[in-house]
Amino acid sequence: MQIAILLFDRFTALDAVGPYETLGRLPDAKTVFVAERTGPVRTDTGNLAITADRTLADTPSPDIVVVPGGPGQDPQMENGALLDWLRTADATSTWTTSVCTGSLLLAAAGLLEGRRATSHWLALDHLKRFGAEPTVERVVTDGKYVTAAGVSSGIDMGLTLLGRIAGDEHAQAVQLLTEYDPQPPYDAGSPAKAPAHLVEEFRGRSRFTPT
Amino acid sequence: MQIAILLFDRFTALDAVGPYETLGRLPDAKTVFVAERTGPVRTDTGNLAITADRTLADTPSPDIVVVPGGPGQDPQMENGALLDWLRTADATSTWTTSVCTGSLLLAAAGLLEGRRATSHWLALDHLKRFGAEPTVERVVTDGKYVTAAGVSSGIDMGLTLLGRIAGDEHAQAVQLLTEYDPQPPYDAGSPAKAPAHLVEEFRGRSRFTPT
Repeated sequence: MQIAILLFDRFTALDAVGPYETLGRLPDAKTVFVAERTGPVRTDTGNLAITADRTLADTPSPDIVVVPGGPGQDPQMENGALLDWLRTADATSTWTTSVCTGSLLLAAAGLLEGRRATSHWLALDHLKRFGAEPTVERVVTDGKYVTAAGVSSGIDMGLTLLGRIAGDEHAQAVQLLTEYDPQPPYDAGSPAKAPAHLVEEFRGRSRFTPT
Repeated sequence: MQIAILLFDRFTALDAVGPYETLGRLPDAKTVFVAERTGPVRTDTGNLAITADRTLADTPSPDIVVVPGGPGQDPQMENGALLDWLRTADATSTWTTSVCTGSLLLAAAGLLEGRRATSHWLALDHLKRFGAEPTVERVVTDGKYVTAAGVSSGIDMGLTLLGRIAGDEHAQAVQLLTEYDPQPPYDAGSPAKAPAHLVEEFRGRSRFTPT
């Protein structure tokens, strides 16, 4: 089984690495990082680069597609080659997944029409533009499409899908080995829980806010 | 301010990327990935490579040192050049930190003697060999030394230290933007919570189990 994790300039690292570290522990699966060109791909901060080991052209039919988000998702919305690859890969995939604003790329490729989906909380409403139904849940499964909320939610998505494919016990083993027993020092991880003025501030300067 | 995240062959990706994505959002800080040589460094699965942008020699005095763990930590325990760098960097650092078995590298460098520290649950007892005091907590702070438990705990460590340095509100903002509102599908993230037979199984085949 092949798991393809898409990379593009200015993606958010944890969007990709969360599923890699969980779903990627699927028995007998091989995870490959793919991009338009092989070589290092820089994240949104510019301080981290992950190597794309395969090109999109060399990876036409992965079993599982994982699409991260991040500020770099924006210019990709009009990248025909990337959207074409998503449609091609999706045509034969068993699961097509996203983390954060990666769902907007799936939506732009026409893959989420009429489907329930989620995204980063700042981008959630934009799914409507593409006929998807924004859903306020951390991990949303609709058919073979599994979308996760912002950045860190890819860990929960990865474990959820891992359990679905390989069984609960295998997913629990991966949770234990990654010691995923979260104890955040604050309770500010969603717009419903964070201080209201922070939520307002970020909505005010988001690229997704209508101006 | 400079944050140096150490890379070595067969490190665990999320150990490094958790702190990068949280602590790395410290205002006016520059995160650099460092290794003995620049270029791609492969993780434990072999499927992911992160680029080391700077050599250890070129990064003698970071303000914050972050040491990940993973299966590759083992051979580094006798890598004099790497342990020397840890001692040199620590001599002027404001904070010296680790995730997972990275604490064994700090301990092997002689930096945790007489200090409370944590590590991956399978490796925790080994801290004693180096005079550290194993502590069953997810994030342990003793003076300027901050150690975190297994793999995913680097996210909690990163947010904790971010709050300590930049204030609670900044850390909450980063938690909100990374949508870190964890909802694991299972409650198996620590040896105290996971099914007992899984804990036994992994203890039985761990490289840290005395034979």
